[in-house]
Amino acid sequence: MKLEEVIKKIKPLDESAMQAARERQDTLTKPRGSLGRLEDLSVQLAGMTANPFPSMKRKAVIVMAADHGVALEGVSAYPAEVTPQMVLNFLGGGAAINVLARQVGARVLVVDMGVAANITDPSGKLISHKISLGTANLAKGPAMTPEQAQDSIQSGMEIAETEIAHGVDVLATGDMGIGNTTASAAIACALMDQAPEQIAGRGTGVDDDGLKRKIDVIARALEENRPNRKDALDVLAKVGGFEIGGLVGVILASAASRKPVVVDGFISTAAAMLAVTLAPAARDYMIAAHVSQERGHTLMLEWLGLNPLLDLNLRLGEGTGAALAFHLIEASARILCEMATFDEAGVSNKE
Amino acid sequence: MKLEEVIKKIKPLDESAMQAARERQDTLTKPRGSLGRLEDLSVQLAGMTANPFPSMKRKAVIVMAADHGVALEGVSAYPAEVTPQMVLNFLGGGAAINVLARQVGARVLVVDMGVAANITDPSGKLISHKISLGTANLAKGPAMTPEQAQDSIQSGMEIAETEIAHGVDVLATGDMGIGNTTASAAIACALMDQAPEQIAGRGTGVDDDGLKRKIDVIARALEENRPNRKDALDVLAKVGGFEIGGLVGVILASAASRKPVVVDGFISTAAAMLAVTLAPAARDYMIAAHVSQERGHTLMLEWLGLNPLLDLNLRLGEGTGAALAFHLIEASARILCEMATFDEAGVSNKE
Repeated sequence: MKLEEVIKKIKPLDESAMQAARERQDTLTKPRGSLGRLEDLSVQLAGMTANPFPSMKRKAVIVMAADHGVALEGVSAYPAEVTPQMVLNFLGGGAAINVLARQVGARVLVVDMGVAANITDPSGKLISHKISLGTANLAKGPAMTPEQAQDSIQSGMEIAETEIAHGVDVLATGDMGIGNTTASAAIACALMDQAPEQIAGRGTGVDDDGLKRKIDVIARALEENRPNRKDALDVLAKVGGFEIGGLVGVILASAASRKPVVVDGFISTAAAMLAVTLAPAARDYMIAAHVSQERGHTLMLEWLGLNPLLDLNLRLGEGTGAALAFHLIEASARILCEMATFDEAGVSNKE
Repeated sequence: MKLEEVIKKIKPLDESAMQAARERQDTLTKPRGSLGRLEDLSVQLAGMTANPFPSMKRKAVIVMAADHGVALEGVSAYPAEVTPQMVLNFLGGGAAINVLARQVGARVLVVDMGVAANITDPSGKLISHKISLGTANLAKGPAMTPEQAQDSIQSGMEIAETEIAHGVDVLATGDMGIGNTTASAAIACALMDQAPEQIAGRGTGVDDDGLKRKIDVIARALEENRPNRKDALDVLAKVGGFEIGGLVGVILASAASRKPVVVDGFISTAAAMLAVTLAPAARDYMIAAHVSQERGHTLMLEWLGLNPLLDLNLRLGEGTGAALAFHLIEASARILCEMATFDEAGVSNKE
């Protein structure tokens, strides 16, 4: 489907399913509201899926990888060669996201959206949507062309649509790309009209000098490119990344198919901000997994109006926070669907 | 084992296992520290179990139920008959704790520590350690005798020791008992020397009048009984409950066997406070599952020096928060044991 069609297909939450879920929660054998956010989330899941008995069993994390020309500016603690190396680690099952996805029974889809190396994949599982061998250096001009920005979103939508057609209940966003906290911070600064020092953090662990360099690079990128914050495609093209564009597509396609999408950390949240700029109704289909240790993340979640489920000082990306949140999301659906009612269990209700 | 022997058996965390776990974390394919609290927790688990590769697969929640004479004072939104009704619901698999334990692969042990009814259990699964048919009304005198306090702790220790002998890796505490937030608040007030209005909350959902009544009852109980806050057995006997004593035993026996114990909400935290009063070293074996919506819980966790994993506005008890936390605890152990190292995966480390 084309971007415009997908955007048009995104509808508000289903009020009647939410009402039914709310009513059922109040008949279950527990004091009303005593499961707090799990109850609220179950009602939201009913609204997203238009189903008062939502199932959250079939899960997948889409991990999108790409390289960033801006890595040349020394904004990361790791060399760019780590991007393809980590892609192979994802395919081999040895990365954190593999461990956490295995635990929760989620599939991991690894997508090459634009890694700056030709990856030889012995597993045959790598999904290739390589837009280019990494973006251009956003500090010196646009990261990509407008066509590449469109392409990256389109690729993400196609991947999500395929998963949804195969019956997935809930998707999560994951990312890998040396330099991508710089691009994400630049996106957030552009959309929120914020200063780089309010948003940029240490990413994979740069020192004070590295952080100063990063803030300076973002300031130069915004000055050089002057992205139009009302135009998400312009922001993505000028200061974004291919994996970020791909995640925008995943989020929009999920919302259009009434599937919840679990937004991981800093990079995924930048993608979510682009997605709501394109389609404000997409916001209702997002679940914020966690608030990360990365500086601007709290402000970005507030801008989106999302309340994160977890706060564990994570700052890894890959979809790791989202994989942990899957457990809570499935728990909230199971509570709604599996608990006995007061009548069924013969338990006296409140006096 | 006797209480004094169990207390003597509780040893500090194993430093060499913690050191080995810390060193391994720094070789795994992620930026150092990027999994935040999961990394810290994995090191703590290594220290508890004296094993640099701790396994957290075999899990059990021990749900202890008992009645409280103080329920006669109108301190709960539910009638006392709900305690035995909910015990049957636990045995039938329809309660929230059953749903959440099933999801995470944990056994649920249901223990009658002193329900004020003779329960006919068609399932044959109820564990009976009935100390008495409910406690006496703590507003008018001691809730139980010193012997009953000892007995309740002893029962909890035996149940935990049996589970541990059968190979459980991690235990969690759960509770059921109409009136037990009143007893728990009284315990916390006594141990912390705090005013009841700082600690007491709405429990299962009393209104303003109910809360006022509850605060007044706790004040009267402390005035009438004058528990000695240096003597946990005295506090338990005078203002406690049989299920709370049982949970003290579960916590102490877990610590003595080097098993982590996941402390659920308000009632379990009151039990944890009694346990550290008896054996300060037990604290290192506790994992606080969540901070509940119940007013004093934050102060109680601070007094214990525990940092909760989750904050989801839960206030149900039963071990529900602990069952959710099991997933995070197992995740932290799996990260430590299952992730590939930089060498194994051929990934370049920090520049």
